[in-house]
Amino acid sequence: MPLQPHHDGSARYVPEQAPSLGDTVDVFVRVPAGADVRQVHVRTTGDGEPRFTEAVVDRVDGDDVWWRAPVEVRNPVSNYRFLLTGASDQRWLNAAGTVGHDVPDHGDFKLVSHAPPPAWARDAVIYQIFPDRFARSAGADGRALPDWAIPCDWDTPVVGRGPETPYQFYGGDLDGIAERLDHLDRLGVNTVYLTPIFPARSNHRYDAADFDRVDPLLGGDAALARLADAVRARGWRLLGDITSNHTGDAHRWFAAAVADVDAPERGLYYFDELTGRDNSGSPRCEIEPSYESWNGVRSLPKLNWGSAELRRRFATAPDSVLRRWLREPYGLAGWRVDVANMTGRRGADAYTHEVAALLRTVVTQTRPDALLMAEHGHDHTGDLDRDGWHGTMNYVGFTDPVWSWLRHGEQPVPNFLGTPGGVRRRDAAAVLATMDTYRSLVSWRSYTHSWQLLGSHDSARIRTVVGDAARHEVAVGLLATMPGLPMIFAGDELGLTGINGEDSRTPMPWHRPERWDGGTFAAYRALLRLRRDEPALRHGGLRWVHHDPETLVFLRESPAGTVLVLARRAAGRPLRLVGLPAGENLYGGAPALRPDGGGAVALPGDGPTFQVWRLA
Amino acid sequence: MPLQPHHDGSARYVPEQAPSLGDTVDVFVRVPAGADVRQVHVRTTGDGEPRFTEAVVDRVDGDDVWWRAPVEVRNPVSNYRFLLTGASDQRWLNAAGTVGHDVPDHGDFKLVSHAPPPAWARDAVIYQIFPDRFARSAGADGRALPDWAIPCDWDTPVVGRGPETPYQFYGGDLDGIAERLDHLDRLGVNTVYLTPIFPARSNHRYDAADFDRVDPLLGGDAALARLADAVRARGWRLLGDITSNHTGDAHRWFAAAVADVDAPERGLYYFDELTGRDNSGSPRCEIEPSYESWNGVRSLPKLNWGSAELRRRFATAPDSVLRRWLREPYGLAGWRVDVANMTGRRGADAYTHEVAALLRTVVTQTRPDALLMAEHGHDHTGDLDRDGWHGTMNYVGFTDPVWSWLRHGEQPVPNFLGTPGGVRRRDAAAVLATMDTYRSLVSWRSYTHSWQLLGSHDSARIRTVVGDAARHEVAVGLLATMPGLPMIFAGDELGLTGINGEDSRTPMPWHRPERWDGGTFAAYRALLRLRRDEPALRHGGLRWVHHDPETLVFLRESPAGTVLVLARRAAGRPLRLVGLPAGENLYGGAPALRPDGGGAVALPGDGPTFQVWRLA
Repeated sequence: MPLQPHHDGSARYVPEQAPSLGDTVDVFVRVPAGADVRQVHVRTTGDGEPRFTEAVVDRVDGDDVWWRAPVEVRNPVSNYRFLLTGASDQRWLNAAGTVGHDVPDHGDFKLVSHAPPPAWARDAVIYQIFPDRFARSAGADGRALPDWAIPCDWDTPVVGRGPETPYQFYGGDLDGIAERLDHLDRLGVNTVYLTPIFPARSNHRYDAADFDRVDPLLGGDAALARLADAVRARGWRLLGDITSNHTGDAHRWFAAAVADVDAPERGLYYFDELTGRDNSGSPRCEIEPSYESWNGVRSLPKLNWGSAELRRRFATAPDSVLRRWLREPYGLAGWRVDVANMTGRRGADAYTHEVAALLRTVVTQTRPDALLMAEHGHDHTGDLDRDGWHGTMNYVGFTDPVWSWLRHGEQPVPNFLGTPGGVRRRDAAAVLATMDTYRSLVSWRSYTHSWQLLGSHDSARIRTVVGDAARHEVAVGLLATMPGLPMIFAGDELGLTGINGEDSRTPMPWHRPERWDGGTFAAYRALLRLRRDEPALRHGGLRWVHHDPETLVFLRESPAGTVLVLARRAAGRPLRLVGLPAGENLYGGAPALRPDGGGAVALPGDGPTFQVWRLA
Repeated sequence: MPLQPHHDGSARYVPEQAPSLGDTVDVFVRVPAGADVRQVHVRTTGDGEPRFTEAVVDRVDGDDVWWRAPVEVRNPVSNYRFLLTGASDQRWLNAAGTVGHDVPDHGDFKLVSHAPPPAWARDAVIYQIFPDRFARSAGADGRALPDWAIPCDWDTPVVGRGPETPYQFYGGDLDGIAERLDHLDRLGVNTVYLTPIFPARSNHRYDAADFDRVDPLLGGDAALARLADAVRARGWRLLGDITSNHTGDAHRWFAAAVADVDAPERGLYYFDELTGRDNSGSPRCEIEPSYESWNGVRSLPKLNWGSAELRRRFATAPDSVLRRWLREPYGLAGWRVDVANMTGRRGADAYTHEVAALLRTVVTQTRPDALLMAEHGHDHTGDLDRDGWHGTMNYVGFTDPVWSWLRHGEQPVPNFLGTPGGVRRRDAAAVLATMDTYRSLVSWRSYTHSWQLLGSHDSARIRTVVGDAARHEVAVGLLATMPGLPMIFAGDELGLTGINGEDSRTPMPWHRPERWDGGTFAAYRALLRLRRDEPALRHGGLRWVHHDPETLVFLRESPAGTVLVLARRAAGRPLRLVGLPAGENLYGGAPALRPDGGGAVALPGDGPTFQVWRLA
């Protein structure tokens, strides 16, 4: 396909990256030679009414014509798209690309006037640690284990699905993490995200028994302070994980609520039995209390965000759950919010957007540079750009399409989304359609501040999905070079395997270097370094250049330069692309790009491969 | 294309048409022979979390397998879609059709638990009257004209664009309408919708000077009561038109607000000059008040829905604007809400959904069977299914695609949406893509209760768009046979022409029968009768069977029977369709459908044509 007219929310196209309500900002459309475009209008829908403004030619740069149009930031989120009029036809250009028929407004580009995420976030590379399985300090040895724990040696196989799954206890702790930060440094990350660290009755700790102290099994509050210091000393940031949808049934709030129907904690949850007495007037102890819980799991009672008391305890009180861990000596740089997609939703209750905005306000008040990231179990797009979550874990717009493109074999690979039959193998066209659709529904800011991941503690590991190191490298290449914040689940960089989320919670094989895939680690390290060195990979736009079933080619364009990326899941025919300049290979070892007499550059046909060039 | 697996919100697929919160209802998928489907799951997102439930085979009916699955009406709007698993692939089936890659949730089918629209509405056929131009009673002769009016004889040409456009005054009145109801009866409509009837300073009266009385130029309150009686006597309904976004600057509210910054009316509008005094302390009369207005037109000051006083006067007060005209002796059956898309939207103010819900509550309180329809200037989908508007004027999902398919010639035809270059000619694939996309974003209920129109007082006339009677018949055919409530702008049935909204406000040529296109009138009459006689055309589903650039073929399926529709904008090759039974021609004169030895029926290739068969 020839290069298409292009716009996205990056700085080459939208120089003002943090517009305020009432501003009028210039936006640019790049029209390559040969595209049939004679006139460009920008269409806005300020105050709910469509308006068209004619764009003007700002400049001609080589073969490209750059059109410029003003857009008023009229509403908190201001939509716009372009109408491209040619000699023979008219097309829309919206955030999903160009299209020849009328389309709804949801795919419009979006200027968001809410306060932007913290500046550090856009350069974050996140490393996800599941504390029980990462590293064990010497201090862990003397700790008494709770009744629920099934003690496991570091070499004990993880049971991915079974009654013991949540109770296998390996004893990783926070000091263990602090001792291993050199590994993270070699890898090239700069943000450490810990899954929950509060006391609980499981190894995953998503069933918090308390929000007011760090689990003594992890070393307690003091260990968190030590880890925070160690992370800060490297210039990095530490993120926590908070369960806003539910607590554990061992939580003292819940215990108080069960014990006394008149307790102030009663309203923090959803009890369907209001009186706790049966018809005969017998005392409540004879009746099991009925309450809403996460997916019907009784150990995870659901929080009721209609409760003012919950809002106070969780968020607004001076010593609230959210606030205290953002402060010294812990100084978390923000929160990943567990099942944010369900938080505040129950039947006719729809508090989610209110809760997101409330949490954002409180977090930002407490620490102005804090980040607030939402886990989301499916289509997150309706929950972003609302002055709440800064971004999401982009399973639907990144993980799933990448898996579907790179997965090997035909055996089921369950995806995070729980789709029966798991992730099917799809060609690049399907990958693009999915990525483009989800991207088009949110602002560029929310898209680029969301976490891109190849897997997590809730999914199979990427190595198991793709089957070998060569396709694993292609996956990491996409992670490191596409827009969005790369998140790496600890162990993926060693080529560890896992068939589902629980099975993937593998203890890190520090003492088994023979199990490390050194080539995979080197690829992570080199690709993350490349991302650090090339501003275009962190802040550039995204412009698709070519796709065929086995191949994706795209540009990352920034004011500081442009990078071309080639990803192939299998060998194919060499490509000849017109309209690109010369380029120096930065990763992958392919030859430099040199336009031939016809103005075309050649891209090699071998594969699987991942190649990056800096364009002249 | 072979017949595809199908589901929509109609009664064959969703027997429970008015589910309540907490219900679990069965939904059905029809899988035709030859479709590779071995397993069906329904996916829901109750409380924000995806869940999959396996469907079972309910029955086999001829070559079709009907799968059944339960869906819990867990939230006020409950989404669902289907996963179809075959031997070789997996597809989603959502409200836009089947797709082979992951898609966002916005295209999911929707069960809405809000109270349904009034029962009468789904059989409504609406006739839109612009009172100044419809008919003039003898009583109009004696009326003194206001200063702004440019009196025109009934034969005076309408000036479509010029300084006199809003002031040309023809003197049509309400008694004139009452005298002409026999014409509406012959045509076959049952609902009369009047554009505004309040006093104003223009012929269109969208600049209301008062909401508390009917314009004396139209005959005043008594004439409205007489018209209401005459409409009711025929078993029909009368709808009004209310401007919730703005008033005229001659409105007494606005006059009071301008005269005194401390008046209670001040807060009903958006005045940017809060003090009305300049820096020198001079009195306010020296300063032009600055205020927000509709599209910057100063004669249309915008209402501020943040004002509790506005909500009271307009909606909640016992004698509010909304309420009084719904009561006897006027008894309007509901309101069409002017520029509902802008109502409540201004910069950071986003009251639209609140206002829609408020207006719905008040209207329904006052008259339980009232209808509340929103005008919308572009993508309306985000404003429906929220317990506010029952439906919208579906310009984007019907008018525009039909125009783009049937328009003749290459000269510009401006569309209602104001797109530069107007409506381009598109093939049927683009028509389907547009219709399917917009339909997929709202519930079946909102889609089928929206108004389908070929034009209005705000657009060119359909005859001008399509150019001749043959394609006009195809357009009317689609209007009468597709889901949605047909709305006919008075005069379209006579083949009148108009190049834009103002130019289309043609006085009805009662005294010029030679200007009537009798064939076009007969087509409207026959097609509306067909709609009345065939429940499938009023209440059936919508299943596309075939399209090529010149042709659209679809089924309307209801428990009472199935109808097949063929629309061609030009002649093409005859079609051979497999999988359809025999059928009797109901409209258009084509032969009956008779499956041949190969099980195929033949559809004729001549065109333009519009044909309807009732299937066995």
